[in-house]
Amino acid sequence: MPWNLTSPYAQVGDLALLVGLRHKHFIVSLTPGGELHTHRGVLRHDDLIGRPWGSQVFSHQGSPFFLLQPSLADILTDLPRNTQIMYPKDIGFILTSMSIGPGQTVLEAGTGSGSMTIALAYAVGPQGRVITYEKRPEFSALARKNLARVGLDERVVFNVCDLLEGCREVEADAFFLDVPNPWEYISQVRSALKAGGFFGSLLPTFNQVENLLRALRQWRFAFVEVCEILLRYYKPEPSRLRPTDRMVAHTGYLIFARKIEPSEDGRGREILDEVLGMPLEDGDSPLPEEWRGTSQTQFLEEQGKYE
Amino acid sequence: MPWNLTSPYAQVGDLALLVGLRHKHFIVSLTPGGELHTHRGVLRHDDLIGRPWGSQVFSHQGSPFFLLQPSLADILTDLPRNTQIMYPKDIGFILTSMSIGPGQTVLEAGTGSGSMTIALAYAVGPQGRVITYEKRPEFSALARKNLARVGLDERVVFNVCDLLEGCREVEADAFFLDVPNPWEYISQVRSALKAGGFFGSLLPTFNQVENLLRALRQWRFAFVEVCEILLRYYKPEPSRLRPTDRMVAHTGYLIFARKIEPSEDGRGREILDEVLGMPLEDGDSPLPEEWRGTSQTQFLEEQGKYE
Amino acid sequence: MPWNLTSPYAQVGDLALLVGLRHKHFIVSLTPGGELHTHRGVLRHDDLIGRPWGSQVFSHQGSPFFLLQPSLADILTDLPRNTQIMYPKDIGFILTSMSIGPGQTVLEAGTGSGSMTIALAYAVGPQGRVITYEKRPEFSALARKNLARVGLDERVVFNVCDLLEGCREVEADAFFLDVPNPWEYISQVRSALKAGGFFGSLLPTFNQVENLLRALRQWRFAFVEVCEILLRYYKPEPSRLRPTDRMVAHTGYLIFARKIEPSEDGRGREILDEVLGMPLEDGDSPLPEEWRGTSQTQFLEEQGKYE
Amino acid sequence: MPWNLTSPYAQVGDLALLVGLRHKHFIVSLTPGGELHTHRGVLRHDDLIGRPWGSQVFSHQGSPFFLLQPSLADILTDLPRNTQIMYPKDIGFILTSMSIGPGQTVLEAGTGSGSMTIALAYAVGPQGRVITYEKRPEFSALARKNLARVGLDERVVFNVCDLLEGCREVEADAFFLDVPNPWEYISQVRSALKAGGFFGSLLPTFNQVENLLRALRQWRFAFVEVCEILLRYYKPEPSRLRPTDRMVAHTGYLIFARKIEPSEDGRGREILDEVLGMPLEDGDSPLPEEWRGTSQTQFLEEQGKYE
Repeated sequence: MPWNLTSPYAQVGDLALLVGLRHKHFIVSLTPGGELHTHRGVLRHDDLIGRPWGSQVFSHQGSPFFLLQPSLADILTDLPRNTQIMYPKDIGFILTSMSIGPGQTVLEAGTGSGSMTIALAYAVGPQGRVITYEKRPEFSALARKNLARVGLDERVVFNVCDLLEGCREVEADAFFLDVPNPWEYISQVRSALKAGGFFGSLLPTFNQVENLLRALRQWRFAFVEVCEILLRYYKPEPSRLRPTDRMVAHTGYLIFARKIEPSEDGRGREILDEVLGMPLEDGDSPLPEEWRGTSQTQFLEEQGKYE
Repeated sequence: MPWNLTSPYAQVGDLALLVGLRHKHFIVSLTPGGELHTHRGVLRHDDLIGRPWGSQVFSHQGSPFFLLQPSLADILTDLPRNTQIMYPKDIGFILTSMSIGPGQTVLEAGTGSGSMTIALAYAVGPQGRVITYEKRPEFSALARKNLARVGLDERVVFNVCDLLEGCREVEADAFFLDVPNPWEYISQVRSALKAGGFFGSLLPTFNQVENLLRALRQWRFAFVEVCEILLRYYKPEPSRLRPTDRMVAHTGYLIFARKIEPSEDGRGREILDEVLGMPLEDGDSPLPEEWRGTSQTQFLEEQGKYE
Repeated sequence: MPWNLTSPYAQVGDLALLVGLRHKHFIVSLTPGGELHTHRGVLRHDDLIGRPWGSQVFSHQGSPFFLLQPSLADILTDLPRNTQIMYPKDIGFILTSMSIGPGQTVLEAGTGSGSMTIALAYAVGPQGRVITYEKRPEFSALARKNLARVGLDERVVFNVCDLLEGCREVEADAFFLDVPNPWEYISQVRSALKAGGFFGSLLPTFNQVENLLRALRQWRFAFVEVCEILLRYYKPEPSRLRPTDRMVAHTGYLIFARKIEPSEDGRGREILDEVLGMPLEDGDSPLPEEWRGTSQTQFLEEQGKYE
Repeated sequence: MPWNLTSPYAQVGDLALLVGLRHKHFIVSLTPGGELHTHRGVLRHDDLIGRPWGSQVFSHQGSPFFLLQPSLADILTDLPRNTQIMYPKDIGFILTSMSIGPGQTVLEAGTGSGSMTIALAYAVGPQGRVITYEKRPEFSALARKNLARVGLDERVVFNVCDLLEGCREVEADAFFLDVPNPWEYISQVRSALKAGGFFGSLLPTFNQVENLLRALRQWRFAFVEVCEILLRYYKPEPSRLRPTDRMVAHTGYLIFARKIEPSEDGRGREILDEVLGMPLEDGDSPLPEEWRGTSQTQFLEEQGKYE
């Protein structure tokens, strides 16, 4: 059963967050007969099932806990991982910028520990689908386990292979590329993404951004945006309101772009320069051969949709 | 038909973005026989319908345009409005922090021009529902029109009234409060929100945050977070990579909290202080009478779910 | 002998910074026959005196060190303290914004551990003077010791008293107020500051800024500015250039203003509203009696300089 | 007469700032018989001379002005220029980080319009000296005029030549390099800077920073720091305290380093890697020949100061 934020009270199969003293967090899947053992005592799932969310409950030792539906941030914080996870500050802006929503087909590479996969699978809803690539089998296995834990694995197709080996063409609505060398995969991204589709990536260093920007221009991705999100917390004390002393200064640069299908028509040269963000230079490679005739175009041509 | 980002190519009823020279934007709903008149010539909808997204098209004067599915940011930028709209940087983090997703029931007040309403309606999907309050009839009417334009109005219930007059209790999964004086409405928010539900607000000034924090404590909202999002764009030029010269420095402070149901049990006092973020002080009002026994609790008690 | 950054090589009396392995720092005053004992061995001052700055030297155990003139940041980091010190990011902007420079007379309250006092004393040079107030004798004593250590104590007059008890009128060029409740001292600041003088303060919370702004308006300080400085470091690796993971998110809000001498002439009302930053409101107190006739004005009137 | 912030009231030769309605600024040098013509009327210098700073004065038309000593920011804003000027936020931090102070000898290249030159000349005081290089004669001429206007030209030596042609060795305490290609000048910087001296630069793009970092490592500059300063203003309204809507997002990255004199002694290899910020790699050039034996070292050796 998927991570369910619409249940009115704690039910069997729901993912539940227990918050104890000193902000100690536990996430469990509620099972009849189940038990949560903490160093402040045992909580019986049967005592939690049926309670309203937000309730205060007590362990057998009498130690207090709050029973809550875990937020996305709670789940990500709690995620078993062997890679850097995505931060909610970046995830939120990525989902919005790429307009990820219910019913979409979204591609992702690499899967990593599955943190972004969870966010994508949640956002596309039960009618949507996430197809994710990861070349390291042990990472893919962990991600699959993490997705299963939050009940979102049925929306996800896990592929254990390098994207360079090619991915089945899926005409994805959006493609999120989370690998250290994304510039090597832009050809693959182009063929997997539907015409007009949304591209996104996150990269920690400037040097990587420089390389990716060159590859995006080469492969005629347009409307390129590079940005970063800074999240600053405040101490929530009304009489001494001030930012926290320290903050996360950097997770990564975000890069977004759209796959376009420029025509060969000479009248379109000026707007092409504009939407690519800069004029094509002599140093730029010519249009790659395989760039012509994407599967979408071929499909439509075959359908007689346009000449 | 709703704003549809899953269509493989431009279809009748789809919302389409046309980008012309000098980054001029137009958003239209594709209609057989329809025409888009620009100062660079006319585009016939029939010439657009059936084309792949991302295609380059030309007006009758031969001026080039790109045909795209509009992103959420495109739609918000283009929105007719008489109020300050929400920025995508804030919307993304709000949706993620409040874990808004498919199938949920979300409350909002006030509606304003409907920018946040669009984002919420898109995120909750066809099975979800947004109930929004706005006391100024002309604002509600504009928002309704804006939602209809993107085909998301069927997911939204528009109420023209002040929240203070009370809202029908809906056991909402989340409540986003976008009014200048949110501290006056926390009692209403509490009764409309399901136990454990997510609360969010955005406020431009420190003084408002101060007031809201006091009200949230008074009404026993816990896990309070105050933060702000800074979005910084870079010029996407690989050989001269640098931030843009200027940026939006402030839109508002974001405040999040969870509705909890503390028990009267004395063993829970310490954890209550912790999750409220600070000890209750002598100056704090006693627990308001109406705070006891939310409808959720009553409902469950009646169902015999717990004693 | 003052902290001397103009010496061409290490000389007797110079303040020297020794940096050892693992970035271990030591600041010493070079004395004939002196020794620096570290857990990596002993450095004899006589072996350092006469060496060029930047040299590599070795302890008696053969452990390497670099011999440098300490920067202001080095000195502040190393400062024995019992209060929060000022950060270089704020100090630099304060000095520039208040135009602190050689030959000036600058007032400061409170002294604290003397970190800002050191910066001020360094900037005003041998012809300048810093007059500092501190009501806690143990703090003033520590600051005096810290100033003596860097050889700048002769430029500083230390007062152990509360500013509220009044300070001798000095016609200071600038006044830096570093106390938690600056709004209670603005009358005193006004009488101590020369006409047109520069005012500055640093406050950690929004609530304090709010109070100070009201007091500055009340006492007719104009050209008020409120700002904050964010300093973000990058990892200096050319092939992996990126910001550090974490940063200082907040030290304090900076407030600057100028003391003005508005006339009673009605023709000046409009510009007064402008430079005060907002119209005087009915709720504002009338001009305080003692505000009229500052000593500067009186002095000049007595001199017949203007009627 | 230099820009004089220590005068108690407006005197002949002082630089004066007149602020009129709508924040209109004028900076003049007070001269007997002089007149300032504005579109709101004429102000006679003789009516200003002798007045306290901060006074309200009126033009012959009765339009109000405030008479103030200009701050550094006022002077820079008002500076005639043909290049990008330095911002006070960066200047303050540069002065502090490079520990610029009274009595020092500071080198600068290039001069540009002289904005940083003014800040340096002000900070080193009457006993200090600034030596500045600029290859474009018309820029140097404008800078000289700008320095003369604020009365600081006597502290500055203007050189019209490219630094690559070599600069007379001056054993400068600090060197600020403000050119687009600083990596080409690090050898010259090294020979002009005293042992242990402070190096600083400001660069707008990441790519430039990358190049400079490689050159600094090559020429054995240590303690390298890369950072940026963000300055955020708040609207100074106590009842509606909030940041301004927009801000300057970027001026440049700041790079600081120290010239060190590593020994050939093998025991120093580990600490050298540490202070250079990273291990020397095989790809790094060997120590340049001319790096050995700086003039400072030679001088001291000749003096028999150390063997």
